[in-house]
Amino acid sequence: MINVTIFNEFVHEKTDENVRKIYPEGIHMALKNYLQDEKIKISTFTLDNITDLTKEVLDKTDVIIWWGHLKHHEVPNEIAKNVCESVHKGMGAIFLHSAHFSKPFMSLMGTPCNLTWREDGDYELIWNINPAHPISQGIDRFIKLDCEETYGEPFGIPEPDQLVFIGNFEGGEVFRSGCCYQRGNGRVFYFQPGHETCPTYHNEQILRVIKNAIHWAKPVYRIKEIICPEVKKPMEE
Amino acid sequence: MINVTIFNEFVHEKTDENVRKIYPEGIHMALKNYLQDEKIKISTFTLDNITDLTKEVLDKTDVIIWWGHLKHHEVPNEIAKNVCESVHKGMGAIFLHSAHFSKPFMSLMGTPCNLTWREDGDYELIWNINPAHPISQGIDRFIKLDCEETYGEPFGIPEPDQLVFIGNFEGGEVFRSGCCYQRGNGRVFYFQPGHETCPTYHNEQILRVIKNAIHWAKPVYRIKEIICPEVKKPMEE
Amino acid sequence: MINVTIFNEFVHEKTDENVRKIYPEGIHMALKNYLQDEKIKISTFTLDNITDLTKEVLDKTDVIIWWGHLKHHEVPNEIAKNVCESVHKGMGAIFLHSAHFSKPFMSLMGTPCNLTWREDGDYELIWNINPAHPISQGIDRFIKLDCEETYGEPFGIPEPDQLVFIGNFEGGEVFRSGCCYQRGNGRVFYFQPGHETCPTYHNEQILRVIKNAIHWAKPVYRIKEIICPEVKKPMEE
Amino acid sequence: MINVTIFNEFVHEKTDENVRKIYPEGIHMALKNYLQDEKIKISTFTLDNITDLTKEVLDKTDVIIWWGHLKHHEVPNEIAKNVCESVHKGMGAIFLHSAHFSKPFMSLMGTPCNLTWREDGDYELIWNINPAHPISQGIDRFIKLDCEETYGEPFGIPEPDQLVFIGNFEGGEVFRSGCCYQRGNGRVFYFQPGHETCPTYHNEQILRVIKNAIHWAKPVYRIKEIICPEVKKPMEE
Repeated sequence: MINVTIFNEFVHEKTDENVRKIYPEGIHMALKNYLQDEKIKISTFTLDNITDLTKEVLDKTDVIIWWGHLKHHEVPNEIAKNVCESVHKGMGAIFLHSAHFSKPFMSLMGTPCNLTWREDGDYELIWNINPAHPISQGIDRFIKLDCEETYGEPFGIPEPDQLVFIGNFEGGEVFRSGCCYQRGNGRVFYFQPGHETCPTYHNEQILRVIKNAIHWAKPVYRIKEIICPEVKKPMEE
Repeated sequence: MINVTIFNEFVHEKTDENVRKIYPEGIHMALKNYLQDEKIKISTFTLDNITDLTKEVLDKTDVIIWWGHLKHHEVPNEIAKNVCESVHKGMGAIFLHSAHFSKPFMSLMGTPCNLTWREDGDYELIWNINPAHPISQGIDRFIKLDCEETYGEPFGIPEPDQLVFIGNFEGGEVFRSGCCYQRGNGRVFYFQPGHETCPTYHNEQILRVIKNAIHWAKPVYRIKEIICPEVKKPMEE
Repeated sequence: MINVTIFNEFVHEKTDENVRKIYPEGIHMALKNYLQDEKIKISTFTLDNITDLTKEVLDKTDVIIWWGHLKHHEVPNEIAKNVCESVHKGMGAIFLHSAHFSKPFMSLMGTPCNLTWREDGDYELIWNINPAHPISQGIDRFIKLDCEETYGEPFGIPEPDQLVFIGNFEGGEVFRSGCCYQRGNGRVFYFQPGHETCPTYHNEQILRVIKNAIHWAKPVYRIKEIICPEVKKPMEE
Repeated sequence: MINVTIFNEFVHEKTDENVRKIYPEGIHMALKNYLQDEKIKISTFTLDNITDLTKEVLDKTDVIIWWGHLKHHEVPNEIAKNVCESVHKGMGAIFLHSAHFSKPFMSLMGTPCNLTWREDGDYELIWNINPAHPISQGIDRFIKLDCEETYGEPFGIPEPDQLVFIGNFEGGEVFRSGCCYQRGNGRVFYFQPGHETCPTYHNEQILRVIKNAIHWAKPVYRIKEIICPEVKKPMEE
């Protein structure tokens, strides 16, 4: 069983009628309802109960999924730091869409994570550039989204360990839409689609990518504590 | 002075009236006329005199530029092998457009270098995704080409050491258009634009990229012979 | 069931009494006896029957393991090419020790794969530098080998996608001993230990690494043919 | 002219007689005296005047060199953050030895940067594994240091963009001793040697590496502000 924790700030869905129509229970519940199955067990947290996202919860989380946009600054530094440390110890992390500016993603990247953007109803084609990657299994040449916020390069991230998807927007932009990293013992996947005013997380192929990413990001090796020990000579150990 | 050798198969320009109009002296001469300056000295070779592209020439070449399309198979294996060995010893190499299927590029990559393609007059926007790379200096957010052959992903190359450009085609494709590699002691740059029926190599920004790539790819360190020597213990040397 | 094919040139074991004592049935049979289990089914080939290593065999092979040293040149070019194409289509490949100079490994790397070496009975410590990689699971901080041929840097390979092990030799050398690559759809692992005059492939931890590598390298996605198709505009497909 | 700023915490040299003998004016002054030349102009800062290391100073700095050990926590968060932002905007940064645990290095990496260590007078051989990298020019197969603190793997860093040096320690450890990264528009180099009780920064080859790294890390492209702008469609711009 893979224990997945979803954090969604859950603000747009309560303040914007258009968003509520798409995600009446919130993005986190939409994701949970689609992704939970016999191998994946999901807990959800929002800004309203983020203080419940304790170290104990993170210690039992195999993969965290993060969606945030308006209220990144309201996520307590301590919690963002705990998320990063859990990744370092082996937990997987999937950052969706505007979570490029979330505290834990920015800390894990070490870069500004800036980009250009435009919100005018363009369609997006998300191209599968590495059909042999575990995260792109079951995905054809591209995923078509009739509506998505446009994100454009340059995207201020480190060169990805593996680049799996590149987005093409109707207006002419491109974007590194699916990026894999290892940070400490943990695996990190950034996935660009998911603007709150578009029904992206009702798209089966998008959900398939996220489910694949859960399986890819689950811990291979997990440690209890990060140490920096004084050691003896190896031949004398 | 950087000694640059351009190889162009020089077939389309002699057999297709439309191409001849764009490059009356051949792509190699167009490139030579634009790129040669007080720091760059250029020699050219075509399929007609490819046997003159000897080891001695390669030994004196700092950077080779390669354009080919119809007649990759007519490049002698021995010459392709010598080009690769010169790269291994430190020579830089720039492969343009359809040279993705040239013998030396495929050998240096170790992969199929396959792609999808379409030729129907689409425009292309080539996005600068790494504005701090030496090859993208002087290039704005993107280069616009009114006409270019469409190349699409997946592109069968190894994950680039640095990805500098991504192309966006009118029809919706994306392509890793500017890819950097180190192979042995030499640097390799693949640059996608340059279809023979489009005036791509008359575009100042495209030429700027190629000139930047010459400066980036020139040898940092060059050896005369690749060896695999038996050695003494380092502390006894 | 993972179908593994082992190729061992099987020359030293027949011509050198010391090697025969260590591997009386050949390195391939030692590996087969240790690695075969309820999930891994192994076939073996040697130089004597290498022409039986047909495309049909490769098509059914999930992971190939390659050991060669004296007779790399006797491996037919056609078979080396078929191995590379199978990797491109999705097959995994594990190259052991002196297979750094084998035809398929060199072709897949696109580099000289040269190194320095010394054979004087040094011990080696193989350090696990990425404890979260699937290939290093079950391996402690390092593997100690009382006897191994010394391989030294610079090792003429492309920057690995992931570097998992670094070897330290008694005399003072270091070596990138465990290197991961993707080539086309297939995964490639190079693993340095395994000199024929040392009982390396009787070491449980070395075998554990190779078994891990089999599981890591098995195909994620496999295609029947490598194509370069002309396509329609994505929105018109 | 390359403007280099050296930060050295300058504690050991004032509190430990052995260290003072080696670096009577401090590590920063030793480095300055060796590295300053007609192309490199150096300013120095220590913990005593770290508040003078303002944004204005960083804006004029092309490459910062950082040495710290005992008092990482006394570097104000604001200054560490400014250093990172300057790197993102294009400034180069060289982190020496125990600066692996400095605030700016850890922030730029996004990982724990932990390691194992031992201090018992071992010699170190630092191997040049990429003789074609600009940072290893003028360095032979290895640099021998008669005395250095032992650092061991696993080193909790992201996979380097390029790995240039690997250290071999007398006791048997290995360490990724020379690691290159790009972070935002800036280049980062980590270089392991330089324990305060050893005369490492009087070694000509070590100084040569640092000087090479200054030239490599100097800004290629520099921006005044990191922005995340709303944009128009590229074809309408």
